[in-house]
Amino acid sequence: MITHAARLAALRAELARLQLDGFVVPLTDEHMSEYVGGYAQRLGWLTGFGGSAGTAAVLADKAAIFTDGRYTLQVREQVSADDWSYMPVPQESVAGWLAAHAAGGDRIGYDPWLHTDVWVKDTIAALADRGIALVPVSANPVDAVWIDRPAPSPASVTVHDNALAGRSSAAKRADIADWLAQQRADAVVLTALDSIAWTLNIRGGDVAHTPVALSYAIVGSDGTTDLFVAADKINDAVRQHLGNAVRLHDRHAFAGALSAYTGKRVAADPERAVAAIFDALSASGARILPRRDPVVLAKALKNPAEIAGHRAASVRDGAALTRFLRWVEVECPGGGQTELSAAAVLLAFREQTGCLLDTSFDTISATGAHGASPHYHVTEESNAPILPGQLFLIDSGGQYADGTTDVTRVMPIGTPTPEMRDRFTRVLKGHIAIATAIFPDGTMGGQIDAFARRPLWEAGLDFAHGTGHGIGSYLSVHEGPQRIAAPNYPGGAALEPLRAGMMLSNEPGYYKAGEYGIRIENLLLVVPVTVPGGDPDRAMLGFETLTFAPIERDLIDPALMTADELAWLNAYHVQVVARIGPLLEGEDRGWLDRKCAPLAP
Amino acid sequence: MITHAARLAALRAELARLQLDGFVVPLTDEHMSEYVGGYAQRLGWLTGFGGSAGTAAVLADKAAIFTDGRYTLQVREQVSADDWSYMPVPQESVAGWLAAHAAGGDRIGYDPWLHTDVWVKDTIAALADRGIALVPVSANPVDAVWIDRPAPSPASVTVHDNALAGRSSAAKRADIADWLAQQRADAVVLTALDSIAWTLNIRGGDVAHTPVALSYAIVGSDGTTDLFVAADKINDAVRQHLGNAVRLHDRHAFAGALSAYTGKRVAADPERAVAAIFDALSASGARILPRRDPVVLAKALKNPAEIAGHRAASVRDGAALTRFLRWVEVECPGGGQTELSAAAVLLAFREQTGCLLDTSFDTISATGAHGASPHYHVTEESNAPILPGQLFLIDSGGQYADGTTDVTRVMPIGTPTPEMRDRFTRVLKGHIAIATAIFPDGTMGGQIDAFARRPLWEAGLDFAHGTGHGIGSYLSVHEGPQRIAAPNYPGGAALEPLRAGMMLSNEPGYYKAGEYGIRIENLLLVVPVTVPGGDPDRAMLGFETLTFAPIERDLIDPALMTADELAWLNAYHVQVVARIGPLLEGEDRGWLDRKCAPLAP
Repeated sequence: MITHAARLAALRAELARLQLDGFVVPLTDEHMSEYVGGYAQRLGWLTGFGGSAGTAAVLADKAAIFTDGRYTLQVREQVSADDWSYMPVPQESVAGWLAAHAAGGDRIGYDPWLHTDVWVKDTIAALADRGIALVPVSANPVDAVWIDRPAPSPASVTVHDNALAGRSSAAKRADIADWLAQQRADAVVLTALDSIAWTLNIRGGDVAHTPVALSYAIVGSDGTTDLFVAADKINDAVRQHLGNAVRLHDRHAFAGALSAYTGKRVAADPERAVAAIFDALSASGARILPRRDPVVLAKALKNPAEIAGHRAASVRDGAALTRFLRWVEVECPGGGQTELSAAAVLLAFREQTGCLLDTSFDTISATGAHGASPHYHVTEESNAPILPGQLFLIDSGGQYADGTTDVTRVMPIGTPTPEMRDRFTRVLKGHIAIATAIFPDGTMGGQIDAFARRPLWEAGLDFAHGTGHGIGSYLSVHEGPQRIAAPNYPGGAALEPLRAGMMLSNEPGYYKAGEYGIRIENLLLVVPVTVPGGDPDRAMLGFETLTFAPIERDLIDPALMTADELAWLNAYHVQVVARIGPLLEGEDRGWLDRKCAPLAP
Repeated sequence: MITHAARLAALRAELARLQLDGFVVPLTDEHMSEYVGGYAQRLGWLTGFGGSAGTAAVLADKAAIFTDGRYTLQVREQVSADDWSYMPVPQESVAGWLAAHAAGGDRIGYDPWLHTDVWVKDTIAALADRGIALVPVSANPVDAVWIDRPAPSPASVTVHDNALAGRSSAAKRADIADWLAQQRADAVVLTALDSIAWTLNIRGGDVAHTPVALSYAIVGSDGTTDLFVAADKINDAVRQHLGNAVRLHDRHAFAGALSAYTGKRVAADPERAVAAIFDALSASGARILPRRDPVVLAKALKNPAEIAGHRAASVRDGAALTRFLRWVEVECPGGGQTELSAAAVLLAFREQTGCLLDTSFDTISATGAHGASPHYHVTEESNAPILPGQLFLIDSGGQYADGTTDVTRVMPIGTPTPEMRDRFTRVLKGHIAIATAIFPDGTMGGQIDAFARRPLWEAGLDFAHGTGHGIGSYLSVHEGPQRIAAPNYPGGAALEPLRAGMMLSNEPGYYKAGEYGIRIENLLLVVPVTVPGGDPDRAMLGFETLTFAPIERDLIDPALMTADELAWLNAYHVQVVARIGPLLEGEDRGWLDRKCAPLAP
């Protein structure tokens, strides 16, 4: 294996050949995806960093890697301090570091297919003061030296049934055409892979755990669409499903196709379309309308078929998880089990449903201190034995044709400490405060996030992540635009109004470094609520909990709960038994009944 | 009196003379003040509108007035529909209306001393598409036709004692000089009148209820300052207080002085300095650094002297208010009292403290349905009798040399209805949820705002204003940068982190149109909180309530309160008695004791 030091040296030699004094390596793809295929894992290849968010900046004699608070420890373990400086974001920025360390007159390269136009403009402005130029490259210099770079995935495109999608692609594209008319636009460029999959009712296999296909689409004012995708991914069934109104082109024809919009008004999303697309449209003489991808909100508002599908997936998934939770309680205290063996057991239960297509993300199977890292990823190297006295945290989900699930539960291995029960109960109180919230239509996720935190805040505690994220329908496990998070959450998602039909996770937690982690996660559906006696002209919303699996009673201190909170918990457990009980047999069924018995004050 | 129709005609004639096709009339002054002197009340003079926020746009054959939801009714009563269209903001914008109604080639004037640079640039961009030009005027055409325009106030500047300010002006200016060094700036232009007053430890009388003087200041990198203020406002005592490091100039010399900064780096606040200042600095060849006025945050973090002063003012003010509340209970049910007579009685009690310098805003004395307008302003025309069966709402405050107060209480006239008690109790629960909140350092007001709303939301109710605003120390009753409000509150104040030493109001309410209004307002101080057993590295903050006056027990339904909420109320009333009891005598004292007796579940 080529060492990471040698990789950095090779990149520097390539930069010298290109007469560049530096280069910026982000962790994304041409679609600004959160999760990317192996071919786009340039940051990991160059540095060894295995996290899901980060950026590197390389100069001839210095290099820095920028990661957020989730990866403070991990980056130090995986990336060599001999070659790299560790820079925290958002406190530090690539532009700031380049301004401080590059020399006046330097030319710093960037790949315009991997950055937003806003990032490019801001960085150019920040460096101009120092006489440093930011220049686009026509081919990524990392790829030139990445000998064993994986080929793009060959996975086929599949049809997502209209019965599951709840709406035909033609109808969805007609809505986009209406939107284009409102915007007085001739076309919209869709670059987000899940937006394209949703619009065309197709799915793919090019990104792990997220059923999307590498592609671009341009929807015109008549709803007809140009789809740019590798031809060998498309079989006759898909071709027939797409129909004549969807014209197929090779993915590599996309950049050239943008030159056909001279004089046209073309919408593109500044957060989702990369700088190269803005550059190509500008160069062609198109009038660019910077607009949020119209699919983002449409996709978030689930229709009845999507909601019904999710309910079915959720019950099936909850039954598999419940069998697993019993297995943890029965098998783990005796020793011999590990984070990896437990994850394998859970996967087997999900596979036994006969419907599992994939997990919806890498399962977080974390025991003891590992649980204190909210994004812990178990590997052969990190794999820890599950031991008595620990809390075991399992955060996982399944991809089913009818829905995407995401759920977290915590089990004590043996008897939990009073502190663990206090913390778990506070997290549960926060979870219930979100689940029972009623709020005016138009309220943003950022307004209610603190409901989940107040029981922790009162004890001088908190958790360092958002409370909830959107989720797709057999699509990405993280989906915008809504979110339950502090109002300064990056990207402003927390300022999106919550609307009926949106799905969100509800996942407060508590993490004690070096000891344990707690998180209780169910999925929610935003629903209209009628409050008798309320202002008649004030539309109210609330949540319906969609996830069913027992919340561990041995971790709850009823003395900390209000009567209303206990009533919610007991009613929830009645629902759990009613919905997933019928799918369980024998000892699993008896265990469920015992776990869901009413809890008294 | 010249009719408003004649005023509009005169303005149109003046615009024709200036070869302008339209003009924009905002309600602000050259300092982007919230409250402005009579000389700057151009919008009110032109249209008859008496609210505190609005803008007019005038074309040759059309005119529109833009107001927010607070003034939907008021603008229709005060401004003639014959001449004006009513436009709601933020749904509609001046730029949008001009784009729709002006003709291509039109020239629309604006006064660059009354708009921010951002507004000018955005409006120019919005109109460019339609071929409409936005052009600055060198003199405001409203002033040319405003025959009886008030002269600027002649009020003198006074010294604000260092003992009350807690910090000398020299020390404050040294801090600004340090900030300038950090910014690598040569000077900062201060335009906010309260920033100038705070920095120089002076006060004035040019704006009703806000003790500031019309002035500009430029602080240099050595802390010396150029102050631009009418010479006849400054007596020897003030001159001596300011000292040699503050150079005095006439206010009219300010614009010219900006031309002296060629090649210098000058900080100016895009939200607080008007476009004309940015234009003048640009024209002079200065390098403008758009930065928030450094005084804004410094002024918000009260020092021990300011806090001690506020405590003294608060007790004095609370005693006067308590005497008034008893007067309401005793005198009003019998009839014969009105909103104006009640406000006069309260003013008299405040004056009897011997310390009152001014009220801190126009007292909101609102009975019955008037209370449902959160910003109701009583006039001779609107003055209503206080009648049995009503709720009477009093929102008022005093300006004292040692502090600015702001407090709201509601009293039933006779027996309140069960609905009134239910609503009042929910507002009180929201008030207590804010008063008792504990949160991590760095939490923003927008994160906790919903604590105040949840008890109302649960009943399908809400209130349509922020929960809390900052407040000055013998300065403006509304002061930034912090606020407790929804995260999309205009200006982003809700995204400012709360920090120890900030003062805020806590004023949830409920308003039933046509019937009554409820609001419970105390002032709060942000204080560090130590929670035993909390994460040792997590600094927590909380609130200390600063306002003391009884919260009407007859309006509280104890059955709706939790044990913790009742405990807070009873402990608060113990404090009320302990602090203001010693200032009351005779029947006032007995009444206070009865009102503050413990409330049982």
